[in-house]
Amino acid sequence: MQGTQTRYSQLFGKTLRNFPTDETSKNAKFLIKAGFINKRIAGVYEILPLGKRVVSKIENIVREEINAIGGQEVSMSVLQPKELWSETDRWEKLKGAMYQFKDSSGKDVGLGFTHEEPMISMVRERISSYKDLPIYLYQIQSKFRDEPRPRSGLIRGREFLMKDLYSFTTSKEELDKYYEIVAKAYKKAFDRMGLDTVYTEAAGGVFTNENTHEFQVLTDGGEDTIFHCENGDFSENKEIAKVKEGGKCPKDGGKIKESRGVEVGNIFRFGDVMSKKMNFNFKDKDGKDKPIFLGSYGLGITRSMATIVEVHSDDAGIIWPETVAPYKIHLINLGGEKVRKESDSIFDKLCNDQVEVLYDDREESAGVKLADADLIGLPERWVVSEKTLKEDSVEVKKRSEKDIRLEKISSI
Amino acid sequence: MQGTQTRYSQLFGKTLRNFPTDETSKNAKFLIKAGFINKRIAGVYEILPLGKRVVSKIENIVREEINAIGGQEVSMSVLQPKELWSETDRWEKLKGAMYQFKDSSGKDVGLGFTHEEPMISMVRERISSYKDLPIYLYQIQSKFRDEPRPRSGLIRGREFLMKDLYSFTTSKEELDKYYEIVAKAYKKAFDRMGLDTVYTEAAGGVFTNENTHEFQVLTDGGEDTIFHCENGDFSENKEIAKVKEGGKCPKDGGKIKESRGVEVGNIFRFGDVMSKKMNFNFKDKDGKDKPIFLGSYGLGITRSMATIVEVHSDDAGIIWPETVAPYKIHLINLGGEKVRKESDSIFDKLCNDQVEVLYDDREESAGVKLADADLIGLPERWVVSEKTLKEDSVEVKKRSEKDIRLEKISSI
Repeated sequence: MQGTQTRYSQLFGKTLRNFPTDETSKNAKFLIKAGFINKRIAGVYEILPLGKRVVSKIENIVREEINAIGGQEVSMSVLQPKELWSETDRWEKLKGAMYQFKDSSGKDVGLGFTHEEPMISMVRERISSYKDLPIYLYQIQSKFRDEPRPRSGLIRGREFLMKDLYSFTTSKEELDKYYEIVAKAYKKAFDRMGLDTVYTEAAGGVFTNENTHEFQVLTDGGEDTIFHCENGDFSENKEIAKVKEGGKCPKDGGKIKESRGVEVGNIFRFGDVMSKKMNFNFKDKDGKDKPIFLGSYGLGITRSMATIVEVHSDDAGIIWPETVAPYKIHLINLGGEKVRKESDSIFDKLCNDQVEVLYDDREESAGVKLADADLIGLPERWVVSEKTLKEDSVEVKKRSEKDIRLEKISSI
Repeated sequence: MQGTQTRYSQLFGKTLRNFPTDETSKNAKFLIKAGFINKRIAGVYEILPLGKRVVSKIENIVREEINAIGGQEVSMSVLQPKELWSETDRWEKLKGAMYQFKDSSGKDVGLGFTHEEPMISMVRERISSYKDLPIYLYQIQSKFRDEPRPRSGLIRGREFLMKDLYSFTTSKEELDKYYEIVAKAYKKAFDRMGLDTVYTEAAGGVFTNENTHEFQVLTDGGEDTIFHCENGDFSENKEIAKVKEGGKCPKDGGKIKESRGVEVGNIFRFGDVMSKKMNFNFKDKDGKDKPIFLGSYGLGITRSMATIVEVHSDDAGIIWPETVAPYKIHLINLGGEKVRKESDSIFDKLCNDQVEVLYDDREESAGVKLADADLIGLPERWVVSEKTLKEDSVEVKKRSEKDIRLEKISSI
C-alpha cells in the first residue's frame, strides 16, 4: 500500500462534480463520484488509489482471519483449460456464464469463474496420503463471469475480486467441523469491516444435497430476497432464522418476505461429489483409497467494499468504518497563508506520528472542500481556519456524528 | 502473507521426488520440484504457498521503490473493450498476441496485454489541467499474452505477474527526467532482490524514435542476445555499454556478441505519440491544449522470481537471497523423541521472536530432509541432532557457504 499520508492536490482520482449518468446503484454512484473507482465497461471497474487502499484493508482483514483458521495462500491462474473443466461437466454447464474462447493455436481456454477444478487438480498431483490432510488453501484473485446484465455497480460485475478458500478433508465429519469454523471466521471478518451479516440458508443447487449458507447484508441495494421463517424450529441451528428464495425453512415452516440482501459470502459443502467425478482420493491408514471431501468458501472483496457503501452512507456521501477507511483523518485548511502554514505543520506532525491522513491542501472554496470531505467519507474531518487558530485549535468532526469539538493544536 | 512460521509437515506443496519431465528451464524445474509453483498448462503456472511468499516479498520491494518515486497504486481491469484499443490501432496490431474474443452478447473483448490505453482513458476522463500533472500510476497485476510457444518456465509465459508504471507529464523534458528517476529505482529494486542487472539499450519499435532501455540479467537461461559495444563513445551515457539485438551502439561502434540475458525490466518513452492518437491533452497555464507525455515502465514480478532462481542456484537447488527467501531459517530435527522435543522448543523460541522459520518436523531420513533443505534453498539451515545436543547446540549452515558452525541453544 502507498504511503500513509497524501496531499489531495497530488492524489489521482479527485471527486467529480456530478454523479455518473449511467449508474443507478448507490455504491457505484458514490464510489465513482468520490474517486474510488472508474468504470471501464458495464460490470468492469478500475480501482483508483483511494479505492485501492480500501480494497487492501479489506484484503488484509480477510487474510488475517483465514490465516488464523489454517488457510495457506496460493495464487491460481485465470486461464483455464477446457479438459480440466470437462472432468466435472462444468465446461458445458457454464457455457454462457464462463468466458470461453479459443487461443491462437485453436485450444479452448476459459477464464477463472471459480476454482474448484484447478484446486482439486493441483492437490491431486501433490497429495496422496491421509498424513497430508486436512489442507486449507485460499487465494485473493479476480474472477470472471460473462454476466449478460451486469448491475448494482460492484455488486454484480463481470470482473471482481474474491477471496476463495477450499478445504480438503478426509471425512464428512471433518468437513462439517471446518465448515462451522469458516462460518465463524467469516462473521468475524465482516464484523471487522463494519458489515452486519445474517447467516442465511440457501438451496444447494445441483452439486450437493446439503444446504449452503450465505452471509447476507440486508439493504435496499441488495438483489436477493430474504425470508424470515415463520414458525420454524430453530433448535438444531439457532442462527438460521433467514432463508433465501429457493431455500427451505426448518420443518417446512412458512416464509415471510422480509427484505433484500447482498450476498457478501457463501459457504458450500461439495462433500465427495467433485472428488468422485475427478478421481480425487487419498490413501487412508490401511492404504485404502477414499474420496477427499471438499468445502468451498467465497467472500467478495470488491463486493464487500460496495456493500459497505450501501449501508454506511448518507445523502452527502460515504461514511467509512475506521477499519477500512482509506485514511483516518481528512485535514482541511480554510483560509490564507497563515492557515496554510499552520495546516502544513499539523500535517507534518501527523505524518511523523504515522497517522493515516489525507490533506486537502487545494486552493478551493470552503464549500467545495467540506462537500468533498463528506463525499469521500473519512472517519474524522479536521478543519483549520482563522477562527480555530484564534483558539489555538483545530475543529474536529466525526463523519458519523453531528457534534463538532475544538482540539488544542498543542495536544495533537 | 501467511504467518511467519510454518511446520513443513503441514505445508501444502512439498518437494517432489523427480524433476518435471516437460520443463527444460532451470527455474521451472527447481520451482516445481521444490514446491513453489505448479504447471496448469504450457506457459501458465499456479503459485503455491512457498512461491506466494517469494512473490509477496518481491512485490513489496517493488512497491516500496515505486512509492518512493511518487507512484500511486491502482488496479486496472483484465477485460478490455475493443473500441478503446482501436483508438491506437493496437487492437489490430496485437492480433494473435493479445487474447481477443467475443463475449456472450457478441461484443469484442480482449485480455490486458499491457495497459497504456486504459490508463490514458482513465486519466483523460479525470485530468485536464497542468495543475493536476505530473501523475505517476502503477499496478501489480497479471498480464496475458497469447504466446504460441511459451518457454523458459516463468520467464516467457501466457499469464504472468507484472508491475507496470505509467508517467503522465507536461513535456518531453519532464518525461526524460522522470525516466532517469525510474531507471534508478529499478536498479535499486533489482539490487535489493539480488539481481545484478545491466542497463541495455534496445530498439524502440514502431511507437517511438527514442531508444528504450532494458534491465537485463546475464545468464545462460536468458533468451535475449546482448552485445558489448566495441568502440562506442559512451561519454553521453556512460552506463550504456550493452545493447540488445536490434539496438545500435553509440556512434555506430561495432558490436561484440557477449552473452544471453533475461529482460526483467524495461522502460519506454512513448512521448506524445499515444496522446496524439487518443486526443489526450491538458490545458497549460495559458489555457492552450497540449499533449500529455507518456512514459511506460514494466517490471516482471514472476519473471524476477524465475531469474533469481536462474542465477542463484547450484546443482542441489535454489539459493534464495535473504530479501526474497520465503523463510530465513530451515530448521531440521534429526533423531528421536528427545531431539524432537528440543527442536520443538527452538521452533517455539523462533516463533516468539517473529523469526521467519520453516520447521521440517517430518519423520523422514536425514538424507531426505537435508536434500529438501538444499533444494528449497532458505538462507540458513539449522540442524538439531543428538550430536549437536551433546554440545547444547544447533548446527548452522548458510545455504551459500560450505562452512558449518555450532551455535549454543542458550544464545538463540
